[in-house]
Amino acid sequence: MASTSLTFASRAEHRAWLETQAALPEGFRAGTTALEFVPVEVPKPGRMKLTLLALERPTDAFAFKFTRNAFPGAPVLVGRRRLDGPALGGIVVNTKVANVCAPGGVEAAERVAAEAARLLGYAPHEVLPSSTGVIGWRLPVEAMLAALPRAAAALQPGSIRSAAEAITTTDLYPKVRRAPLGEGSLVGIAKGAGMIEPNLATMLVYLFTDVDVSREALRDALDQVVEVTFHCISVDTDTSTSDTIALVSSRRRPAPPPGALATALAHVCGDLAEDVVRNGEGVHHVIRATVSGARTFEEARGIGKAVVSSPLLKAAVNGNDPNVGRLLCAVGKHAGAAGIPLDPARVTMRVGDEVVLAGGEMRLDPEKEARLVAHLKAAELYASAPSPDGAFRPPIDFPPHERRVEIGIELGMGAAACAVLGADLSHEYVTENADYRS
Amino acid sequence: MASTSLTFASRAEHRAWLETQAALPEGFRAGTTALEFVPVEVPKPGRMKLTLLALERPTDAFAFKFTRNAFPGAPVLVGRRRLDGPALGGIVVNTKVANVCAPGGVEAAERVAAEAARLLGYAPHEVLPSSTGVIGWRLPVEAMLAALPRAAAALQPGSIRSAAEAITTTDLYPKVRRAPLGEGSLVGIAKGAGMIEPNLATMLVYLFTDVDVSREALRDALDQVVEVTFHCISVDTDTSTSDTIALVSSRRRPAPPPGALATALAHVCGDLAEDVVRNGEGVHHVIRATVSGARTFEEARGIGKAVVSSPLLKAAVNGNDPNVGRLLCAVGKHAGAAGIPLDPARVTMRVGDEVVLAGGEMRLDPEKEARLVAHLKAAELYASAPSPDGAFRPPIDFPPHERRVEIGIELGMGAAACAVLGADLSHEYVTENADYRS
Repeated sequence: MASTSLTFASRAEHRAWLETQAALPEGFRAGTTALEFVPVEVPKPGRMKLTLLALERPTDAFAFKFTRNAFPGAPVLVGRRRLDGPALGGIVVNTKVANVCAPGGVEAAERVAAEAARLLGYAPHEVLPSSTGVIGWRLPVEAMLAALPRAAAALQPGSIRSAAEAITTTDLYPKVRRAPLGEGSLVGIAKGAGMIEPNLATMLVYLFTDVDVSREALRDALDQVVEVTFHCISVDTDTSTSDTIALVSSRRRPAPPPGALATALAHVCGDLAEDVVRNGEGVHHVIRATVSGARTFEEARGIGKAVVSSPLLKAAVNGNDPNVGRLLCAVGKHAGAAGIPLDPARVTMRVGDEVVLAGGEMRLDPEKEARLVAHLKAAELYASAPSPDGAFRPPIDFPPHERRVEIGIELGMGAAACAVLGADLSHEYVTENADYRS
Repeated sequence: MASTSLTFASRAEHRAWLETQAALPEGFRAGTTALEFVPVEVPKPGRMKLTLLALERPTDAFAFKFTRNAFPGAPVLVGRRRLDGPALGGIVVNTKVANVCAPGGVEAAERVAAEAARLLGYAPHEVLPSSTGVIGWRLPVEAMLAALPRAAAALQPGSIRSAAEAITTTDLYPKVRRAPLGEGSLVGIAKGAGMIEPNLATMLVYLFTDVDVSREALRDALDQVVEVTFHCISVDTDTSTSDTIALVSSRRRPAPPPGALATALAHVCGDLAEDVVRNGEGVHHVIRATVSGARTFEEARGIGKAVVSSPLLKAAVNGNDPNVGRLLCAVGKHAGAAGIPLDPARVTMRVGDEVVLAGGEMRLDPEKEARLVAHLKAAELYASAPSPDGAFRPPIDFPPHERRVEIGIELGMGAAACAVLGADLSHEYVTENADYRS
């Protein structure tokens, strides 16, 4: 999925590399600020980051994709209204409060968007509101209106790096990826993965380009690319109420060659999707399940997702334990439940370079076991150790490498294939999520 | 689901109560032994428990249900052959090796069954083999054949308690439940839950009665009851390759009144299913999600399962954190993915006695938050603390109480309902599963 394979020896090295990715395409500016507030629901002060992503002039070329969760947040409801609007001039993003099923949520989102639009000199419906944070809490609208001028004053062209930082919540590090595109470029930033952010529901992805492409071309390319990138990852199966992907073009540079948009988008979205998994809560290992020989792409993806979502397999990988019986269990449970008429005798399973199942039988021996352990250990991002207070927290705030646990599943049924990315299940995940709010 | 609500102050108290449940119906005997062996795949000695559950004479009244996993174990393949056989004389159960996708697995299972049958004086096909343990490993057939005479010599009527103990693996305690049935009785034993047993894949349930009911009546009742008991639980979503439920009657007592079999079966299966969840790996809280107002039973069960399978909700419950946004997320993600046209405005959600969502909006305040925390704490089985070596292990080997976290979800769409039982996600689960084999 990712087109790169990088290693970083330190936080400084990672941040320096991020800066090389962060150049804003022509026609965009970014600015951020922060504010303090006290939620009505739990009277304990909170800190919110507020980010403006603005176009120098409104564009008709934009595409959004939103969560399929049946309880969409107010910003998603507002965003769906914006989809058919004539123009987009900016996006206003807040952390800490997701504005989902909160009383008066849609009106609150519209008020914040309207004030951002006023500061930019645009019409209210030309700004998309976007939120991540606690579900059910009310947006502190007055405090946000008071803070917005500071974000507007901070707007600058050049780098999206500070915005990438400001939209993160429990992420360990910001995520920025770019690709050249014709005579312009495409840059994207992301936070979170599904509902991996504890209570700070949301994967938010903003993609900006300056090349001259139409709204229809953007939407077609985004639909196509999301299906094989963001729709092929899972950290904890919990689809957020607020997932949002926006792709916006300023149309300031010439049109790219045919196919170049989809290629650049696949590159940036593939890398960001993998970044999101690698920086998932408590993630020690990224797992890639490549399913081939399926009848359809959907069946291949379903089996891949079952593999990377199996708590038992995830826990085994966490412990560098090549417990391949759990791989077989996960594939079989999904095929059985989904009515995929798998013939065990035609299935081949690999971990790393090792065949672990063929002809309906597992192929295990002590030497192979040792090689499987080595493969798992090579893909480990860090080793687990509790803090003095007994809590488990990741000791890193950068990705030391981009290696993965590679699982191959050949079904012997057809010609369709899919690669799905997921992660292991660790003490750090439990620590982060078992008592996050209190 | 469970028809009882017991509390136990100590292991001794729990074991004494178990003995009251364990009286074998007329016409059955049970015997167990143990053996040492060295697996081919990982040359490290293992200890296997071997149990014989025998009828005093073969019966035509038996019903089996097996896993729907697409990689069924050899004992399941053999069991499916037995279903249409004329008679059943006994069941031979082993732990430690699940005999799934192991070379020569079916032949190995048949050899063990045949030797057990010979010792009982029955035909080879009159004994059902049943296995739980590591997937992919070969059954140590010779060692098992050598040990079987000891199990046969240990056969005794009276109590199923020692067999209930011998089929457990990482269970903290044995599970036995009984109900009166006409002029006889029904007793059941169980181990594990789905693939909750690390690498010891399997939920095994054996139910014995002595009342005079036909094979068809047993199968009809079992189909009906399993749908609302064992099919309504999930500890970690990992359907085992070896799940087996057997219901056998010796037909030694008069026929029960109409409907009595289903009632007794619902009682025993409901209690055993809840026992299996309560003794799930690392379980601190049993969660019951009662979904009502659904269009169909299947939709209600699907939403209930999504709730008790949400890693984020499970982790929040573990921390006694009433993070009800995650409840809403879990319901919404399933409804969205399954195409259930939920109207948020018609949905009501409760935790304990508290309404947390109504009319499409969350109803939260600090006082309610405190009451929700109290409800969660009251349902906690034990508090978490690491051992001196940093590993988390449950400090109890009996269930101190049968309280649950009660979640109510009224969908406002129809008249169907379902109660689903699940559990939280804890450090103990990760400790148990991240490095079990090594």
